[in-house]
Amino acid sequence: MEAFSDGVIAIIITIMVLELKVPHGADLAALAPVVPVLLSYVLSFVMLGIYWNNHHHLLQAVQHVDGRILWANLHLLFWLSLVPFVTAWMGENHFASVPVAIYGVVLLAAAVAYYVLTRALISLHGKTSTLATAIGRDFKGKLSTGIYLAAASLSLLKWWIGFSLYVLVAIIWLVPDRRLEKRLTE
Amino acid sequence: MEAFSDGVIAIIITIMVLELKVPHGADLAALAPVVPVLLSYVLSFVMLGIYWNNHHHLLQAVQHVDGRILWANLHLLFWLSLVPFVTAWMGENHFASVPVAIYGVVLLAAAVAYYVLTRALISLHGKTSTLATAIGRDFKGKLSTGIYLAAASLSLLKWWIGFSLYVLVAIIWLVPDRRLEKRLTE
Amino acid sequence: MEAFSDGVIAIIITIMVLELKVPHGADLAALAPVVPVLLSYVLSFVMLGIYWNNHHHLLQAVQHVDGRILWANLHLLFWLSLVPFVTAWMGENHFASVPVAIYGVVLLAAAVAYYVLTRALISLHGKTSTLATAIGRDFKGKLSTGIYLAAASLSLLKWWIGFSLYVLVAIIWLVPDRRLEKRLTE
Amino acid sequence: MEAFSDGVIAIIITIMVLELKVPHGADLAALAPVVPVLLSYVLSFVMLGIYWNNHHHLLQAVQHVDGRILWANLHLLFWLSLVPFVTAWMGENHFASVPVAIYGVVLLAAAVAYYVLTRALISLHGKTSTLATAIGRDFKGKLSTGIYLAAASLSLLKWWIGFSLYVLVAIIWLVPDRRLEKRLTE
Repeated sequence: MEAFSDGVIAIIITIMVLELKVPHGADLAALAPVVPVLLSYVLSFVMLGIYWNNHHHLLQAVQHVDGRILWANLHLLFWLSLVPFVTAWMGENHFASVPVAIYGVVLLAAAVAYYVLTRALISLHGKTSTLATAIGRDFKGKLSTGIYLAAASLSLLKWWIGFSLYVLVAIIWLVPDRRLEKRLTE
Repeated sequence: MEAFSDGVIAIIITIMVLELKVPHGADLAALAPVVPVLLSYVLSFVMLGIYWNNHHHLLQAVQHVDGRILWANLHLLFWLSLVPFVTAWMGENHFASVPVAIYGVVLLAAAVAYYVLTRALISLHGKTSTLATAIGRDFKGKLSTGIYLAAASLSLLKWWIGFSLYVLVAIIWLVPDRRLEKRLTE
Repeated sequence: MEAFSDGVIAIIITIMVLELKVPHGADLAALAPVVPVLLSYVLSFVMLGIYWNNHHHLLQAVQHVDGRILWANLHLLFWLSLVPFVTAWMGENHFASVPVAIYGVVLLAAAVAYYVLTRALISLHGKTSTLATAIGRDFKGKLSTGIYLAAASLSLLKWWIGFSLYVLVAIIWLVPDRRLEKRLTE
Repeated sequence: MEAFSDGVIAIIITIMVLELKVPHGADLAALAPVVPVLLSYVLSFVMLGIYWNNHHHLLQAVQHVDGRILWANLHLLFWLSLVPFVTAWMGENHFASVPVAIYGVVLLAAAVAYYVLTRALISLHGKTSTLATAIGRDFKGKLSTGIYLAAASLSLLKWWIGFSLYVLVAIIWLVPDRRLEKRLTE
């Protein structure tokens, strides 16, 4: 399951670059319309990098899987697979309100799918398992979900509120968090 | 063989999203023509997820392979590789009768290829092997093949008959089936 | 090296399907222009399947690699990576003479690259190694190279001579060959 | 981390071929506009091959990773993922000055990202580790970075200066390692 998930996330993160359409001109001005697409690509690259990172750590602690886990995992991959689509839509429309909001909806769905996956894993491994204590209360996960919900709504007012909130989530996760790693090495 | 197959299925399931063409408008109305493509994407994602799941379990029980198995496996992957094409054709034509029928023909061919693969595996491992008893009579596989055949024909009358039958196959497989897992853990 | 090569071949074999452009109509007639592209896709799928199969068996017997081997391998992957391009060109032009000939040139280059790779492996492992005896005189490899050369030239006269010769190469390799497997299991 | 990185590099190196647009004509003349794109594809294929090769060797010596390493690695993959985009831009504009310069900027950024990754790995493993002594002064790495900087600037004067310098970097890395490195470290 880990190899398959790693493969799918690797493909998603890479094919996003196919949405960077090659400009027709050969000067710097020709790159201008690509800039917002590139910017949204950078954001999504970081977001998917965070998912890969967390997912990778999560699966390290997994000892057995069943059909429910496999499908909870595919459900997460489904929402992540929509990221290239909403990234391109957001970028090509220069961060218009609706695409920025829909981008948040997809991230929100992925966050919920990740939560469902962790719950399924805990229910299979038991509440006293290493996995369960490692996941803990998952404060960052719940916080992110809340921020995505706010971001998706507020982008309809001003696109940059939503966008800033997505960047905020990225920063929250990029700040080193040795909690899970620590518990796993103990 | 498992790594290669997992890789191919991971790529197929992911590149399908490239068929979701980014709409030009920036409002919700611009998303409307994407809805049927997204719907057919969801269906195919689930179908390929089922194949990955079954294929993954099947290969766990495999102990040795020969050239015939490798080609039976590639034959299956060939039909699965056509899924993105028929998915996009079906979605972009808003589930017109012929594309819905052809979608069923590809699924039917994949189901037959899967059956051929299991037969080749059983003939190599012997009828009394764990693998053979694990596969058993493969009731679900035969049922699915029959439904695909019916669906491909009936879609020509009404598209939604075929579509509903595809959904039915998905439901049949999504219902937990611990038979194979049980036999394997024994 | 094996994982990377398997990954690249899996991607090449799968992205080829992206060249099957979704037709605009929704009836069977709309599929007509896709037929030659599909036919050339089937041929290339089999060809790449043969390469994957042989390459996979070859690497099983490899015990150590150096920089030269890595580059000989990348050289082979380079030519294989051009297969989707020439496949699409051949298919979209309904097997016109020049594209059919260029298709053969790419296959010829891949066959030469495969030969160079086996020579580099033998020179590293020694002429009396299992690998060297397993590869042996590589009659099929040399025969294929000759047929590709003939096919590339003769397609300029009649496209179907070249095409038939490509099919002939595929058949030569699809006929079970337990020589390498036998030597490896000894 | 190695499997994921290998996967991403394998995908990047392969999807580049999707930028080779199938020409509409069926004669050799129709291939003419593809030639510069093919040429830039060959260059980038070699460049990514060098990265894969070095990265692969680097990770062999790695004994443990932390969050910082994972992100330094993703940072490298990000810049490599932009290679298909700048390759296509450079090729489709027949090596115009600005695209050739931007190509160098992306390679420069990737070289810096690789350097940052090696520093992070050394700081984690210690200055006396096998890894640190294996990386050594990394003369070739620093030299390449310098050449990229020069190439990116000089392409604005004459495109072929930049292009020749990229080829020079490729040659520096393709020349077998040990002899040269030994001489350089003496």
